[in-house]
Amino acid sequence: MKIFKDPKKIQQHISNLKKRGKTVAFVPTMGALHEGHAALLRKARTAGDILVLSIFVNPLQFGPAEDFSRYPRPLKNDLAVAKKEKVDMVFTPAAADLYAADHSTHVAEDDLSRGLCGAVRPGHFRVVTTVVAKLFNIVLPDSAFFGQKDYQQYKVIERMSRDLRFPVRLVMVPTAREKDGLAMSSRNTYLSTAERETAPAIYQALCAAKKDIEEGAALNRAGSRIRAALRKSGIRAIDYAAVLSAADLKAASQTDKKLVVAVAVRLGKTRLIDNILVKRSGKNI
Amino acid sequence: MKIFKDPKKIQQHISNLKKRGKTVAFVPTMGALHEGHAALLRKARTAGDILVLSIFVNPLQFGPAEDFSRYPRPLKNDLAVAKKEKVDMVFTPAAADLYAADHSTHVAEDDLSRGLCGAVRPGHFRVVTTVVAKLFNIVLPDSAFFGQKDYQQYKVIERMSRDLRFPVRLVMVPTAREKDGLAMSSRNTYLSTAERETAPAIYQALCAAKKDIEEGAALNRAGSRIRAALRKSGIRAIDYAAVLSAADLKAASQTDKKLVVAVAVRLGKTRLIDNILVKRSGKNI
Repeated sequence: MKIFKDPKKIQQHISNLKKRGKTVAFVPTMGALHEGHAALLRKARTAGDILVLSIFVNPLQFGPAEDFSRYPRPLKNDLAVAKKEKVDMVFTPAAADLYAADHSTHVAEDDLSRGLCGAVRPGHFRVVTTVVAKLFNIVLPDSAFFGQKDYQQYKVIERMSRDLRFPVRLVMVPTAREKDGLAMSSRNTYLSTAERETAPAIYQALCAAKKDIEEGAALNRAGSRIRAALRKSGIRAIDYAAVLSAADLKAASQTDKKLVVAVAVRLGKTRLIDNILVKRSGKNI
Repeated sequence: MKIFKDPKKIQQHISNLKKRGKTVAFVPTMGALHEGHAALLRKARTAGDILVLSIFVNPLQFGPAEDFSRYPRPLKNDLAVAKKEKVDMVFTPAAADLYAADHSTHVAEDDLSRGLCGAVRPGHFRVVTTVVAKLFNIVLPDSAFFGQKDYQQYKVIERMSRDLRFPVRLVMVPTAREKDGLAMSSRNTYLSTAERETAPAIYQALCAAKKDIEEGAALNRAGSRIRAALRKSGIRAIDYAAVLSAADLKAASQTDKKLVVAVAVRLGKTRLIDNILVKRSGKNI
């Protein structure tokens, strides 16, 4: 397993391998790898000759009041996970390796990025699309793997990649969950014991909403029912609870065949997001 | 010589060739090829195994009052030029081939693109950087060739490509000129006989400014001297006449080793730009 910090070096190295016909599967992360990341790596391992993992905690991706400084960076453990999952190359740039002092370019997606987390975290997705574009150009992947937990992020990156014609196949992998249903997240380590006990209510509310919708409940009332369920479980700081078209993240309508129910809440100082996909059978529409 | 309209097809075709170790040299154009483009193609021909020419007149690149509809599109002649210069592939997409109906992504450079043509043509460079990013991802060039006449455009694309880490070597090729010094441009065909007779005054003013600077003239008076020379030749509509640092397009200072003198004027309805580079010897600084 090779470890690279210099973008030019890993780009040159991969470029040479691609000239010899090798294919590249890529898992971009912020490190603090958990079972969800391991699932991405296992899926990616079967998709390409070379498996590349990037670990980059982007300071620009965090708002001034957000958790950049306390975001976990257990590099030694991350490298052990990478080795176990047969990663060929780990790319661990510093911010200065990806952003020159006179950096002046951004990549922005202006539609799917507007609502949900985009509304709560202004500028966030613009940083994400910019850095993913950089990473795609450095790692030159044939396929790239993302977790469903960040559904909006996936859709934004998918649109960006399609619009800019990146020659990359994007793959969304289902959310890995703890036994009690809580979506795995590097941020779960922030939770106090009490918060951790409350947290499974998020997925429970999503599952209940899914069941309601499948049974034909009115879509325009689903959001308020989720919020009521969350509040009943003691979760009061709700950034959003929404039922949207899974395709374009617009307000769900009766003609949408695939919906996403998405939630963002804050438990103490910790922001948690989760979502569930709902397929609607013909009789529901 | 193969001609492609479908981005996916040429991308797949080039991708397969690159897997076999072939290198790609790329000349992106808006067509209406003249000797300046031919010079780019000849330079590019020696730089890669495969020479790709794109012809795309981007409707988004033109302001509402600009010349999109009358911009020349002599495709048959362009293909003859391409064949003569031993182009391997011509990529001629329609706008709908590059912009989906729900297109929502842009690439913007926010520093070098602000002044000069960026100030006169708002939004112009954002369209340029977006489409060049697309073209780079479709054509997958190892090197790409641009004319010096569009100096600001070159600098903006160079910065964009550097910031986003495109694995592309950019090459700027000196401006091709008519015998009387007028910079070759597809827009020269718009000029009336009288305007065509006036037009060489642009390059004459640039050369005079270069000589003045080399002889130690004050930089802060160069712009007004160029404007006076242009007006004396009958050119009154001057968008800008500026002496800037060639590196970052900031106002030139005595410490800059390389300057660019850049001019944009309108002759009747035709907008013409030109520039000249000035190296400053130690004694001048």
